[in-house]
Amino acid sequence: MIVETLAVGTELLLGQTVNTNATTIGVRLADAGLDHFHQSVVGDNVERIAAAIRLAASRADALIITGGIGPTQDDLTRDALCAATGLSMVFDEDYAARLRQWWARRGREMPESNLRQAQRPEGATLIVNNKGTAPGLRLRVDDTWVFALPGVPAELIPMVENDVIPFLQRQGGGGDGVVVSRLLRTWGESESKVGEMLADLFEASTNPTVAFLASSGEIKIRLTAKAPSEAVAAELIAPVEAEVRRRMGPRVFGVDDDTIERVLLAMLEERGWTLGTAESATGGMVAARITDTPGASNVYRGSLVTYATELKRSLLGVAGRLIDEHGVVSEEVARVMAEHAGDVLGVDVVIAVTGSAGPDAQEKAAGTMIVAVATPEEVRARTLFMPGDRERVRTYTTTAALHLARLAVSGAGWTDDVVQRWTKPPSS
Amino acid sequence: MIVETLAVGTELLLGQTVNTNATTIGVRLADAGLDHFHQSVVGDNVERIAAAIRLAASRADALIITGGIGPTQDDLTRDALCAATGLSMVFDEDYAARLRQWWARRGREMPESNLRQAQRPEGATLIVNNKGTAPGLRLRVDDTWVFALPGVPAELIPMVENDVIPFLQRQGGGGDGVVVSRLLRTWGESESKVGEMLADLFEASTNPTVAFLASSGEIKIRLTAKAPSEAVAAELIAPVEAEVRRRMGPRVFGVDDDTIERVLLAMLEERGWTLGTAESATGGMVAARITDTPGASNVYRGSLVTYATELKRSLLGVAGRLIDEHGVVSEEVARVMAEHAGDVLGVDVVIAVTGSAGPDAQEKAAGTMIVAVATPEEVRARTLFMPGDRERVRTYTTTAALHLARLAVSGAGWTDDVVQRWTKPPSS
Repeated sequence: MIVETLAVGTELLLGQTVNTNATTIGVRLADAGLDHFHQSVVGDNVERIAAAIRLAASRADALIITGGIGPTQDDLTRDALCAATGLSMVFDEDYAARLRQWWARRGREMPESNLRQAQRPEGATLIVNNKGTAPGLRLRVDDTWVFALPGVPAELIPMVENDVIPFLQRQGGGGDGVVVSRLLRTWGESESKVGEMLADLFEASTNPTVAFLASSGEIKIRLTAKAPSEAVAAELIAPVEAEVRRRMGPRVFGVDDDTIERVLLAMLEERGWTLGTAESATGGMVAARITDTPGASNVYRGSLVTYATELKRSLLGVAGRLIDEHGVVSEEVARVMAEHAGDVLGVDVVIAVTGSAGPDAQEKAAGTMIVAVATPEEVRARTLFMPGDRERVRTYTTTAALHLARLAVSGAGWTDDVVQRWTKPPSS
Repeated sequence: MIVETLAVGTELLLGQTVNTNATTIGVRLADAGLDHFHQSVVGDNVERIAAAIRLAASRADALIITGGIGPTQDDLTRDALCAATGLSMVFDEDYAARLRQWWARRGREMPESNLRQAQRPEGATLIVNNKGTAPGLRLRVDDTWVFALPGVPAELIPMVENDVIPFLQRQGGGGDGVVVSRLLRTWGESESKVGEMLADLFEASTNPTVAFLASSGEIKIRLTAKAPSEAVAAELIAPVEAEVRRRMGPRVFGVDDDTIERVLLAMLEERGWTLGTAESATGGMVAARITDTPGASNVYRGSLVTYATELKRSLLGVAGRLIDEHGVVSEEVARVMAEHAGDVLGVDVVIAVTGSAGPDAQEKAAGTMIVAVATPEEVRARTLFMPGDRERVRTYTTTAALHLARLAVSGAGWTDDVVQRWTKPPSS
């Protein structure tokens, strides 16, 4: 079954809003085994919305429209549906009564403009919106099912998941089976290198398919199987996953919703170790990432962000002699930061970061970043050469520091092959 | 002149990549005064790309295609251009020689597949790509200019800015004048409230136009003027900007590329004050935001992230009695955190944050966040009631803390009207 999406909104064409709805719906359609061949955007203009609806009806089995069904004068999707189909607009008294009740329960008077939301093309079915006041609409245009849904993601996505996709599946869309995806999450290699390492699997695999997704330096390997049941899909995925893991080794840090920090915190909790951080060039980013995770307080205690050199002395007890001899952007200073922060914070494991984040060089070339990790067993330090601008250098170093901590806590080595991507200066 | 955009790539339809190129191009077209009525996405399929090109040629003066011009077998935009136009493919020996040189200079052998990039539909003009090896193409399809550009944003955007838009302007697109935009950046009110405060300006203004953009809680007011010259555009914008500033007061923190943290750091530098932070619930996010700014080290010294309660005692000297009496999520504790951190870090100004970020309540309801700011002149504290999930609570509180610090350092009051949005519990 071929499904097409159409986003309505001048703000999308002006670049004031990113069309993330199309992305989310794209993922949901792929997961449901529904084909998605066209995605379009038009502005708040009845004629152009109507033309887009007619075009989609000529080539797709279903069309999902997002946006343009709110209460204001520039919400034109309902009018365009009438224009595209020749249907007349009717007023839904029942829905109008529900709207009035919704406002009355909140002790407020309803602006009359809201009654636009009780209009619908004759014969259209209302789709319940549990998160807002604009109902969705479903109607048949020629041989195509057309859905008009709100543009607000929090309202839209539940309606797509709970109403539109199950409806299309009941019409026979997506076949009889299930589509199961499993995401293997890796850190430390480029997308092209991961692609090379798994090239033959990518070429040979049709079920499950193998795909690569890159975001913020993390490379995800997605295995997607179609099968009559979840159990059969899992059986198809298992041997390919095992082969990917064999080749990628400790670069794979988790699956699906795992984050490096969540995996690290779980490992620490299991070992009964507490965690702290000491940051200079990343200035709190490692701490912020760790504390993103609910429940981090079971393991994580705090951070000393010693951005100024004199705080490395006064707070962390890094000897002036050491700084004079090696500079603050050095493995020597990073090691001492990690060790002393353990004492000051009273923790078992410390991640310490110092470096030259740019844009200007500080002691070392911009992008030269040092990570040290102290555990009760040992202290390790490594120099990384991070490419890109200040923001990218800091973001990648934050993830790399969490990655190195995970390896250290698990007892895995920091061998060149698992941190290889950034261990050599860019000119070499 | 009507310009249309078409993104090519199955990964966009599957939702593996967000079409941010369309957003960026949308902004550039709007700035240049070029109309943008349709935006589409198709997958890596010659027939569907060709159909999309023919459709655009039937309704637009120009089409910008992004993606599908790389070296691999699934880069099909060149083939689709031939299919859509009936032109034959020719091989550009000059470009092939340049490609070979590019690889030779790097001491590497060129994969033969790269020669696909030297192919072009007969009569197409090559557009130089300074950031990569895939050149762009420009050709005339019926009465429409068609541009085929790379999908990689770092390559694409300079080509749009430096080549495509100036070319279209030379063809008479966007009129003779200039389009000048000025962004007024505000914090502390919702988009709908800002819209209400400026409703009459929004309705009445045609040149400059007034638009509202919301991102991460910040509301930007965009004034866009078309005029024969930059000076005239600035004259048109000035009185509207003055009126917006009069109504919005200290909620306006800057213009264009200003960030709250950059404005705060500049104010501190001017006063000769140094800055530190003491964070609990935001766990390093305030520090991370401040150190995002190059040159922050002129003013900013460091942070004590006291995530665990015992570190508030041992590092910050917050008396156990105070914690027992008021709890750690209290204005009393936030004040002492700010004052003592000033001593420990040796700084003039401290931003301190404590709170209950969620998902579970900690002492107070999730979303109850306390900000304190200590300056050499006074110590202030304020309780904020932040809506949304943990991530949103932490992100908004980080910006709110920087906003409150900016007001405190400038001597402006923390009156309810400038922080009003979050000063009342959600149920009241």
